[in-house]
Amino acid sequence: MPDVRAKAKELMKGYCRVCPVCDGRACSGEVPGMGGLGTGEAFRSNVRALREVQLNMRLMHDAAEPDTSTSLLGLDLALPVIAAPIGGVSFNMGGGITEAEYVDAILGGCKSRGIIGCTGDGVPPFIVEASFGGLKKVDGYGIPFIKPWESDELDEKFAMAFDSGAKVYGMDVDAAGLITLRKMGRPVAPKTPDQLREIIQKVHDKGGKFILKGVMTVDEAEKAAEVGADAIVVSNHGGRVLDHAPGTAAVLPAIAQAVKGRIGIIVDGGIRDGVDVLKMVALGADAVMIGRPFSVAAVGGTQEGVEAYIDALKAQLTQAMVLTGCKDIAAVGSHILYNNK
Amino acid sequence: MPDVRAKAKELMKGYCRVCPVCDGRACSGEVPGMGGLGTGEAFRSNVRALREVQLNMRLMHDAAEPDTSTSLLGLDLALPVIAAPIGGVSFNMGGGITEAEYVDAILGGCKSRGIIGCTGDGVPPFIVEASFGGLKKVDGYGIPFIKPWESDELDEKFAMAFDSGAKVYGMDVDAAGLITLRKMGRPVAPKTPDQLREIIQKVHDKGGKFILKGVMTVDEAEKAAEVGADAIVVSNHGGRVLDHAPGTAAVLPAIAQAVKGRIGIIVDGGIRDGVDVLKMVALGADAVMIGRPFSVAAVGGTQEGVEAYIDALKAQLTQAMVLTGCKDIAAVGSHILYNNK
Amino acid sequence: MPDVRAKAKELMKGYCRVCPVCDGRACSGEVPGMGGLGTGEAFRSNVRALREVQLNMRLMHDAAEPDTSTSLLGLDLALPVIAAPIGGVSFNMGGGITEAEYVDAILGGCKSRGIIGCTGDGVPPFIVEASFGGLKKVDGYGIPFIKPWESDELDEKFAMAFDSGAKVYGMDVDAAGLITLRKMGRPVAPKTPDQLREIIQKVHDKGGKFILKGVMTVDEAEKAAEVGADAIVVSNHGGRVLDHAPGTAAVLPAIAQAVKGRIGIIVDGGIRDGVDVLKMVALGADAVMIGRPFSVAAVGGTQEGVEAYIDALKAQLTQAMVLTGCKDIAAVGSHILYNNK
Amino acid sequence: MPDVRAKAKELMKGYCRVCPVCDGRACSGEVPGMGGLGTGEAFRSNVRALREVQLNMRLMHDAAEPDTSTSLLGLDLALPVIAAPIGGVSFNMGGGITEAEYVDAILGGCKSRGIIGCTGDGVPPFIVEASFGGLKKVDGYGIPFIKPWESDELDEKFAMAFDSGAKVYGMDVDAAGLITLRKMGRPVAPKTPDQLREIIQKVHDKGGKFILKGVMTVDEAEKAAEVGADAIVVSNHGGRVLDHAPGTAAVLPAIAQAVKGRIGIIVDGGIRDGVDVLKMVALGADAVMIGRPFSVAAVGGTQEGVEAYIDALKAQLTQAMVLTGCKDIAAVGSHILYNNK
Repeated sequence: MPDVRAKAKELMKGYCRVCPVCDGRACSGEVPGMGGLGTGEAFRSNVRALREVQLNMRLMHDAAEPDTSTSLLGLDLALPVIAAPIGGVSFNMGGGITEAEYVDAILGGCKSRGIIGCTGDGVPPFIVEASFGGLKKVDGYGIPFIKPWESDELDEKFAMAFDSGAKVYGMDVDAAGLITLRKMGRPVAPKTPDQLREIIQKVHDKGGKFILKGVMTVDEAEKAAEVGADAIVVSNHGGRVLDHAPGTAAVLPAIAQAVKGRIGIIVDGGIRDGVDVLKMVALGADAVMIGRPFSVAAVGGTQEGVEAYIDALKAQLTQAMVLTGCKDIAAVGSHILYNNK
Repeated sequence: MPDVRAKAKELMKGYCRVCPVCDGRACSGEVPGMGGLGTGEAFRSNVRALREVQLNMRLMHDAAEPDTSTSLLGLDLALPVIAAPIGGVSFNMGGGITEAEYVDAILGGCKSRGIIGCTGDGVPPFIVEASFGGLKKVDGYGIPFIKPWESDELDEKFAMAFDSGAKVYGMDVDAAGLITLRKMGRPVAPKTPDQLREIIQKVHDKGGKFILKGVMTVDEAEKAAEVGADAIVVSNHGGRVLDHAPGTAAVLPAIAQAVKGRIGIIVDGGIRDGVDVLKMVALGADAVMIGRPFSVAAVGGTQEGVEAYIDALKAQLTQAMVLTGCKDIAAVGSHILYNNK
Repeated sequence: MPDVRAKAKELMKGYCRVCPVCDGRACSGEVPGMGGLGTGEAFRSNVRALREVQLNMRLMHDAAEPDTSTSLLGLDLALPVIAAPIGGVSFNMGGGITEAEYVDAILGGCKSRGIIGCTGDGVPPFIVEASFGGLKKVDGYGIPFIKPWESDELDEKFAMAFDSGAKVYGMDVDAAGLITLRKMGRPVAPKTPDQLREIIQKVHDKGGKFILKGVMTVDEAEKAAEVGADAIVVSNHGGRVLDHAPGTAAVLPAIAQAVKGRIGIIVDGGIRDGVDVLKMVALGADAVMIGRPFSVAAVGGTQEGVEAYIDALKAQLTQAMVLTGCKDIAAVGSHILYNNK
Repeated sequence: MPDVRAKAKELMKGYCRVCPVCDGRACSGEVPGMGGLGTGEAFRSNVRALREVQLNMRLMHDAAEPDTSTSLLGLDLALPVIAAPIGGVSFNMGGGITEAEYVDAILGGCKSRGIIGCTGDGVPPFIVEASFGGLKKVDGYGIPFIKPWESDELDEKFAMAFDSGAKVYGMDVDAAGLITLRKMGRPVAPKTPDQLREIIQKVHDKGGKFILKGVMTVDEAEKAAEVGADAIVVSNHGGRVLDHAPGTAAVLPAIAQAVKGRIGIIVDGGIRDGVDVLKMVALGADAVMIGRPFSVAAVGGTQEGVEAYIDALKAQLTQAMVLTGCKDIAAVGSHILYNNK
């Protein structure tokens, strides 16, 4: 990983500093770029909320060789980790590798290590071309995300997604509110429950599963379950759409308490290593999505970089499961969280 | 805005550093100047109290194109923002532009963008000359603020204000306690409820509305309503009169709970962007006043700078309303505040 | 004051940095010197506890010209401030002025401005020689403090103090525990209630008043009242004897609630300006002692420096009383404290 | 001590910065080395949790010359301090002295000052050779710690320990989870209660006492008592095995409340000076273990360095006992803890 990070630092110069701790302080307001919007508080809140979670260490048990695998949405995952949908390598990351190289690194690296990656959506056509092109190369083993377009673009893009061979589809409704897109004549927008129900029905009609990304409250988590989503992603879009959104680790427990079991719960935001993965599962997630660290790994080392990062995540997660006494993912629960209140 | 800020940085050298985040750390104790009094804690508390407020993100709704307009004190405002009364460009901001240019930039820029600006008061005569002169140029579309003089100066200045064509008048009673003015033979002082009642009556007799600026407690908010003020400004005078006053965002909710609806509630202190505006409205304000950022915009770009700043505020506010599901200002409420207690 | 501080910075080089905010960070562990013991946490806790106290701003009243005077222990004070007992100018402050010059500056400056100063005690004989010599020059208008010696030194020093013309005497029992003194054969030690009762009786027999300095808990405040002390000083000795003692502003309210009215309550620790004085009175003190800032003033400007510092304290206190609506010291109370819990 | 620290800084260059305050910030992630694992949060949490504890200062008593001695596990200790088991001088500390020199410095210095030191275990044979060799030189006056090996290595090492002349034995079960050891074919692992019972029985059969190191929860503390351990060490292994474990000072009170008296309670983590020792005893510990500071003392000054450090600890502890009114270790209790909640 040190080599991958050094290479990324070189290629992402001016876009990402590849800081020792990726916490959103140095890159405040750098959107486009890798930072958080405005003051960057929402990005930093993700990291801070997760850092405030502490773990009970236990060693009087027999969980010497934990099993990190899990399954979700019909997918078997070697560890409860999914690479988040990120597009725009050129304007967000400096273009050190092409959009297609990026997508191939993410999807290929994830597949080879037994997890799965997502692809992004966006305005310049090369983004979805790279996404759908990449998905076909891995026989559809990936999760395409479509932005919440207001116009026919929505149906058109879903049609392209259905054609990619994927089995699971997502929409990052948290991308709505980008009023710059509206001014460019390509409006994205929030979706009403009825609109979502219709979109989800189309996905289900194709035999697919649907993930709604961008849920930050209990009430919308419950609505997501009601309209038929198969999973939600508790996400504030990496702090890039609403300055001063709370950290996802802070809102996750109440959401999990409300909908766990009725709908898959994925969470992203500030997850950097395997201990963070364990924390999020203990807070109620079925799996996590990771964004920026996968970008650094992909830009700095393409598929090998992504694989090295996943290997590190797995080793860290395994060690943390030993030290907290969890023999498998099902055994992870709130009893491993230190309650300092 | 970057050009405006760069120009302001040049012109305000020695008076304001135009920091990336205007938070009162670099300019502690710089009064005169742009800083907070003493240790600067009251200034910093304003920023800190606002930063601690987090917002619930919601995307399952139809508030795709929110309306930011509101009305208050008979004024129709394109967004719930008023430029705060600030005087003394020469000794507080370095004198890069004249007092009259400053007033014209504030009043003109606000008027052209559908909001309204205030004018300040002070000891050298050129301050009120610029204020009342500027008001006449915009046909009285502005809010003159008079300091709480102890002597006849109070009546004289109100007379000048009545002559300016304005419809709404204010007094920044929080300016009292400047004992340096007292030593110069121009004392300002707190006002008893009876004194305020008398002043307000005179304003009402002229058909005007009265704003009392400098209310920081529930008991004084209630007294302000009892003596007939049309609106209060929850303000600690930008942290420039009482070191260690709490942040305005901290005291606002209890004040709003006590007097909302009986009296207009305006708040200032630490508001920098459109998300901060939304937070203050959610905490109970009808509108906000913004000070230092308007000064930077006016000094750095005169009327165009002020307009650019208002445009930015409106865009940020609009996006934040989409992301929190508020279709208009009336729909903003405490349900968008994340409660992390 | 800027000149006084600049001069002090020069003369105290290597002993005190005369920081913009005197908060115990730069000088951690510098004992001897001006710092706090060990990690310096007790010093910093004093500053921090005081900084966390916020004030309610009120302007609807008639306290335009507050009276800052008070009386305590038979002393009429122009403001509720006493210069703390500090000795050892040579080894703690760099010796830029002599011990005698220091004592004269403190006692003379305080007397000329209507407050009172204390003198210190210590091992090299020149300390008490300066103290008692200085007291005689001001006709005993000062408060000599004696360390809690274990041996006959205690009686001998009190005899010298009785001879100085003073009316009020103090003992800084918080100086006990300096085991270095014990190793030098000049042990200081805690005192039992019986021992204190005996010491106090001797002072009372001479018609004097007795101040016990170094009370940090409710139980010892009550014992101090029971054994007949006329006043206590809530003090952790400036953070110089027990690392990790709490801040005095934190422990003061409970102590005041227990013994206010039965015994005079003085407090020191982290008080820097007139707003801090007001806070301490609002938290329950009858008066405050100030240490390090008086040292800087005395070293940097001798008597004139001390006078300038007292003038600044009075101006700040007056302004803060206007802004919080306190017409005199008796009107200061917990209603001016902002409760952010 | 300054000379010892300066020498250590030179010899440990690249491994330990010998910071003014050893708090885990500079060395985050430096494992091997002297740092905390991953982000270093568990290391920092130890220091932070301890720093948050504040002490009640009391001076109205007769504890002028406190007795710091205690006894535990049949050992008479001049102060409640034990040097923690640390191995790997070459790869963790830079190899400025040999493993044997290190062990001799620790065991010899502790013995000469009336306390006791532990020895470590590890993969290269020279570690245990130094440990057991060193123990024999001091006639077994030390506590050998054995890692929780999965294989026969466990029995073999205990046999070597029994042969060393020691009376008390420990196992740092918190070392489990080092999956690197597993990959090297030398797996360590958590232990079930039954496995522990068996190990402890063997120690008891030899007439020895058993310490279980690495207990961080109430439930495991109770299990430790049930399986017959004579003492536990509340420890997160210096933050070197599970990132984001809580500070030991935070978890100690609940553990002490549950098992105090039934089993010896030792604690390590962030203890730097005598005041920290006093805090831990007040929080419920019978004694403390100290790690990194002993390493700095041993590398920087061999046995004399260790002795100088113990002398400093004793002087600081004595002074703090005077200032908190504790005449002996039995008198230390929660009444000296300031409760700022």
